[in-house]
Amino acid sequence: MLNAEQWARQARTAGRTMSQVKCDVKDRCLTALIKAIDQSRDALLSANALDMEQGQSQGLSPAYLDRLQITPTRLNTIVDSLRQVIALPDPVGEIISGSLRPQGLRVQKVRVPLGVIFFIYESRPNVTIDAAALAIKSGNAIILRGGKEAGRTNQAFHQCIQQALAAVGLPTDGVQLVTDPDRSLVTALLKMDKFIDVAIPRGGEGLIRAVVAEATMPVIKHYQGICHLYVDQTADLEMALRILINGKCQRPGVCNALETVLIHEAVAEQFMQAASATLAEQQVEIRGCPRTCTFVPAALPATDADYATEYLALILSCKVVASLDEALLHIQRFSTGHSEAIITSSLATAERFTSEVDSAAVFVNASTRFHDGYELGLGAEIGISTDKLHARGPCGLLELTSYKYVVVGSGHVRS
Amino acid sequence: MLNAEQWARQARTAGRTMSQVKCDVKDRCLTALIKAIDQSRDALLSANALDMEQGQSQGLSPAYLDRLQITPTRLNTIVDSLRQVIALPDPVGEIISGSLRPQGLRVQKVRVPLGVIFFIYESRPNVTIDAAALAIKSGNAIILRGGKEAGRTNQAFHQCIQQALAAVGLPTDGVQLVTDPDRSLVTALLKMDKFIDVAIPRGGEGLIRAVVAEATMPVIKHYQGICHLYVDQTADLEMALRILINGKCQRPGVCNALETVLIHEAVAEQFMQAASATLAEQQVEIRGCPRTCTFVPAALPATDADYATEYLALILSCKVVASLDEALLHIQRFSTGHSEAIITSSLATAERFTSEVDSAAVFVNASTRFHDGYELGLGAEIGISTDKLHARGPCGLLELTSYKYVVVGSGHVRS
Repeated sequence: MLNAEQWARQARTAGRTMSQVKCDVKDRCLTALIKAIDQSRDALLSANALDMEQGQSQGLSPAYLDRLQITPTRLNTIVDSLRQVIALPDPVGEIISGSLRPQGLRVQKVRVPLGVIFFIYESRPNVTIDAAALAIKSGNAIILRGGKEAGRTNQAFHQCIQQALAAVGLPTDGVQLVTDPDRSLVTALLKMDKFIDVAIPRGGEGLIRAVVAEATMPVIKHYQGICHLYVDQTADLEMALRILINGKCQRPGVCNALETVLIHEAVAEQFMQAASATLAEQQVEIRGCPRTCTFVPAALPATDADYATEYLALILSCKVVASLDEALLHIQRFSTGHSEAIITSSLATAERFTSEVDSAAVFVNASTRFHDGYELGLGAEIGISTDKLHARGPCGLLELTSYKYVVVGSGHVRS
Repeated sequence: MLNAEQWARQARTAGRTMSQVKCDVKDRCLTALIKAIDQSRDALLSANALDMEQGQSQGLSPAYLDRLQITPTRLNTIVDSLRQVIALPDPVGEIISGSLRPQGLRVQKVRVPLGVIFFIYESRPNVTIDAAALAIKSGNAIILRGGKEAGRTNQAFHQCIQQALAAVGLPTDGVQLVTDPDRSLVTALLKMDKFIDVAIPRGGEGLIRAVVAEATMPVIKHYQGICHLYVDQTADLEMALRILINGKCQRPGVCNALETVLIHEAVAEQFMQAASATLAEQQVEIRGCPRTCTFVPAALPATDADYATEYLALILSCKVVASLDEALLHIQRFSTGHSEAIITSSLATAERFTSEVDSAAVFVNASTRFHDGYELGLGAEIGISTDKLHARGPCGLLELTSYKYVVVGSGHVRS
């Protein structure tokens, strides 16, 4: 068994090699990965069947088991996402900016890989392939630590990745999979800031808080998505309802789902009466402010604790507000900085909302569910950040890079 | 006396206002600051004289006292640096990138301020004005915590800043100065990640390690600058000597000064014999590898501990290497990722060096002393980072910003 420093050193050494690999080799590696997955379909499905069996016997929830399951169709989706990463431009080596300085120095700001990524995630095993592909394409080494429940599936995917790296002559330590039985190795790896440049946890809030508490390297993360929809007095109410239902009901368990709707008082009665019927059809429980409760008799009273809760379920907080300012203050107080949306037909109101709401993504007349790397044009993503430093919003290839200054002179000394 | 949460909340509230301020108002504020400094010249010089007097009686070193001192000429330099910040473009609101997505969403990645900066620094009181000016221009609130030795000078500068903010109607809490007698308030502020977005320590390694250990928010920093010069076999040796002397001797106490020179064996004897005379004139002590010691009889033997030391003094580590690879390995092992330079006339060697050396700034035929925000074209800087996340190298206005996604649709829902 390797200890944490050995894992981390191996990653650092492999990362140095990965950082110098040209795009065509990285793309050939990902093509080899597609081939390896295709040739390992039976092995992958059998490994996953064992994980599923164990999960069922452990009484995992149907939703959890669904995320855990790999099917032939899902394997095709995984291969499609690899093709998308191949199609993305290589971020490494981009000259981000540059100038010829008055003293004659030629300065270039050049994009380079971060180095070594430690990625800790739960549940869905397709994330193993997504993360490895993004790391390879961005010239980084990555240490993967998936959920125990997906252990066999992750190992089977990792074997494909090892084959692909070897097939094009890249170091297999470029993508390592940690399969320790307890958390002690993870804890030790989170202290290896000398060799690991960033930790990225993806999963429940408990996991993320544990990583932040233990890590000595920077962490890219988001804790919660308490996402708001504000229905302005100038809103197209039919559009507002469609976007509310999409945000709340399409996939209530994800971070960009809606938790709260704020409604301008001028349209509140009309909107809530129409919305309450549709929400009832969708089996959404409403927790509302006193005025909401007068419009929707079935609503329960909402407390501040409700407004501060990421339900991740078919529950919706509702509040009638007297103005855009009141809506902005509510969002300022309860938002987790993930995604907020406004429905309005007023340009001035839209401008104020997008300017003053301090969240990673702000939507005008569109669903918060679009807060996703692919939908916003970044290609695949390794996660979403609500931090403000380095990466905000979806983390794709660019967010897995840094830069350095390359300065060329002809004997220049500073006077 | 305010407690840490009150300081931090005030900064957060002011930061919200600062983030929305247009460029012309921010520039008028900086112009008002120039005026306030001009009108307070006597008060500033008297406050500084008291700090100097106290410093002398406490036996501070001449070098320290020199950094602490404000003179009429230095006040002019401070005003000049303010003019430079005024002349820089406002980073806030820049559309970094954008696209119309296939599903019809218009996506913009917009530059926004970070929010609240906690800046902890030592010694030179002009940094108070530089940091405040950069924070104001980039739309951030800042909490300043300067060194105790410069306490009166910093307070006098802070009064000028307060006048300037008030003169244009900006919140005076936008720039707060912490003047607690002990470190307990600093420690408490470093836990206020709910209100403070980033901590930036600037000073000795001890200060920086203490901040990193205590802070719960991200920290932008560098610990040390063990900077290397590699003299390649194809180097113009006269140029190499000029750049060596500039890097080592011009200001030995700063982070971008040279600590180690690596010399290709093909030119080592010739170079070291010429260099040792000049280095002796400059009173530089040489600590060398065995081969260096044969070329320079006065040299002391260098240990690994020497190669790992940031001397910040007129001492130079020297090592003869057999190849570029050996030089790269030495740098990989001992570099702190700050600044490294190569002297070469070979394009291929320069390409390999700039590509493989993983430091914030890599110089070809130029002195590492150019690693500075102004020299590299960023305008003023608040410090230098050897981190890879968010900011690497000089931290100017751009590095004090984040971004958000603004997404405009026409009723878009996700299917």
